[in-house]
Amino acid sequence: MSRDFSHAAKQRRRSDQVTLSQVAEAAGVSPITASRALNHPEKVSERTRNSVLEAVEQLGYVPNLVAGSLASSRSKLIAVIVPSLINTVFVEVIKGLQETLEAEGYQILLGNTDYDLDREYQLVRTFLGWSCSALITAGLRHNQACQTLLNNWEHPIMEVMELGKGMDLNVGLDHVAAGRCMATHLIDQGYRHIVYVGARLSQDYRAGMRYEGHQEVLKAKGIEAPLVELDTLGSLQAGAESLQQVLTLYPQTQAIHFANDDLAAGALLAAHRQGLNVPGDIAIAGFNGLPLGQHVTPQLTTILSPREEMGRLAAKELIRRLSGKNVYRRQHDVGFTLQVGGST
Amino acid sequence: MSRDFSHAAKQRRRSDQVTLSQVAEAAGVSPITASRALNHPEKVSERTRNSVLEAVEQLGYVPNLVAGSLASSRSKLIAVIVPSLINTVFVEVIKGLQETLEAEGYQILLGNTDYDLDREYQLVRTFLGWSCSALITAGLRHNQACQTLLNNWEHPIMEVMELGKGMDLNVGLDHVAAGRCMATHLIDQGYRHIVYVGARLSQDYRAGMRYEGHQEVLKAKGIEAPLVELDTLGSLQAGAESLQQVLTLYPQTQAIHFANDDLAAGALLAAHRQGLNVPGDIAIAGFNGLPLGQHVTPQLTTILSPREEMGRLAAKELIRRLSGKNVYRRQHDVGFTLQVGGST
Repeated sequence: MSRDFSHAAKQRRRSDQVTLSQVAEAAGVSPITASRALNHPEKVSERTRNSVLEAVEQLGYVPNLVAGSLASSRSKLIAVIVPSLINTVFVEVIKGLQETLEAEGYQILLGNTDYDLDREYQLVRTFLGWSCSALITAGLRHNQACQTLLNNWEHPIMEVMELGKGMDLNVGLDHVAAGRCMATHLIDQGYRHIVYVGARLSQDYRAGMRYEGHQEVLKAKGIEAPLVELDTLGSLQAGAESLQQVLTLYPQTQAIHFANDDLAAGALLAAHRQGLNVPGDIAIAGFNGLPLGQHVTPQLTTILSPREEMGRLAAKELIRRLSGKNVYRRQHDVGFTLQVGGST
Repeated sequence: MSRDFSHAAKQRRRSDQVTLSQVAEAAGVSPITASRALNHPEKVSERTRNSVLEAVEQLGYVPNLVAGSLASSRSKLIAVIVPSLINTVFVEVIKGLQETLEAEGYQILLGNTDYDLDREYQLVRTFLGWSCSALITAGLRHNQACQTLLNNWEHPIMEVMELGKGMDLNVGLDHVAAGRCMATHLIDQGYRHIVYVGARLSQDYRAGMRYEGHQEVLKAKGIEAPLVELDTLGSLQAGAESLQQVLTLYPQTQAIHFANDDLAAGALLAAHRQGLNVPGDIAIAGFNGLPLGQHVTPQLTTILSPREEMGRLAAKELIRRLSGKNVYRRQHDVGFTLQVGGST
């Protein structure tokens, strides 16, 4: 097993906590110089900085950020709240955010709501309590309590993923337009019996917005726009199961417009197992542009959303604001790209 | 655009910050009762609690957690550090951790190291500075500075993913044994020319441990155990590209043991595109038991690691420790399951 077995062993060391004075002594500098080397490294020589950092590492010193943040009532923490971590789409946005923010010395405090706005409110309340210097949320919809909280809050708020009337800053794409774009592609390919398949559209409301756009285009052509709404959020399994469900409910279906690539790829792989030809027997389209869609045969027709880029841009705009620069545009449309594969 | 355009607009509200006294007034209770309702809800009546919470929501009050945590020098924050969020395996562990910890009122502070131990040290230092009440890291390897820091730290440390000599608490599985298990399966199936494919094994050292086990079994049978090491960490694309590379370097290859399911599924889908028969022309095996492996044709032979369960168990053990209960076992082996599909 390991070195010190008892519970007491780990608690005992409390009094041994390394102090800044010890760091200063080990580095051969005054405590004030040690503090400066840590908090304003640009104000000391490289040699001093290096000897202080070396002492910090050797002694295992931990600067108390809580005390610092209380003193300045401001921290280098930025809260990021997303609906899901299992959905890689959000993780890619976080990746773009993180790279850019951490390069500027910010640390991310990450929360996920499981697509639940009440949970979002709880998370926002906790995170604001940690004196974050900014908040980034996925989406423009919040419950009333959360709206009130954010309206009262003095720091920048960045809402990402969809474009619209935001609280403060907004970087996203037009999901209604994305839905329209794919529906138009399917109609241009000659399909007339097209089913939209999504999951829990009241929660994953951006998928609902894409359905709105889809519906608009089909109705304008005088075509019905049936919707099959699944219970479980986007997964390969749900997509696989929905294929049979759609074909039973709407036997004439020629094409399925899935709310995301996970569902679409699941259906495509299931069609393959069942010996159905894609797109001959059934055409399949998705949304997101996940790598998987480009590895299946035939390649998936989808709409590529620039997720990392969205994160990077949101972070850059936030940093501009936090550094006191003027922000001329509060809204940025990152756009999307139709990617036509063999599946339609 | 949105309501208040100028930068100044969001800053101006600073002085409007809602105080606890205002909450108390709105709820018709004393400030001390309001404070109690928020910090020790079990000590007030349900009616009082509800009216205080209602006032909190209506006014958008944010309790200052930084001040609270400084006073108690302890917080309800738990730091979780993983090598990657893009790799869904870690996200599933986090899901198990989060569900269990949040149910007990803990909030997770999440960091990712990109498989870089120096970055891990920086993250650990920042997180300890936030007075976390415990730290959860993926893996048992840390750099020297991080070791020193953690040795000096008085709070519980939980190391997850692999089993071994830990610093404090440890929940994981035996990766060498997992490598042995898959190698034994491949030999039992009659394959003799078997290549192991992994990526950056010095960083993804758990994949390196599985290769050790693999090598052991093959060497014991007097069989060579060639390794192909890729540059990019597990992705479908890397797996797809490696297939051709392996067949060029080792034309006799009968089976490929991939370090993970992303690589394996990428190779399987590529084999499909190239008209190669799996397992007739080439057998393919992975590790993790990702859903994708069960949706491809043929289904992927893999080793299922109980990721959410690992997270839940780690969280439970940590909560036991944090609540002052005795911890009798510091190490928990969550095991693994060989899942035989049609791909071998």
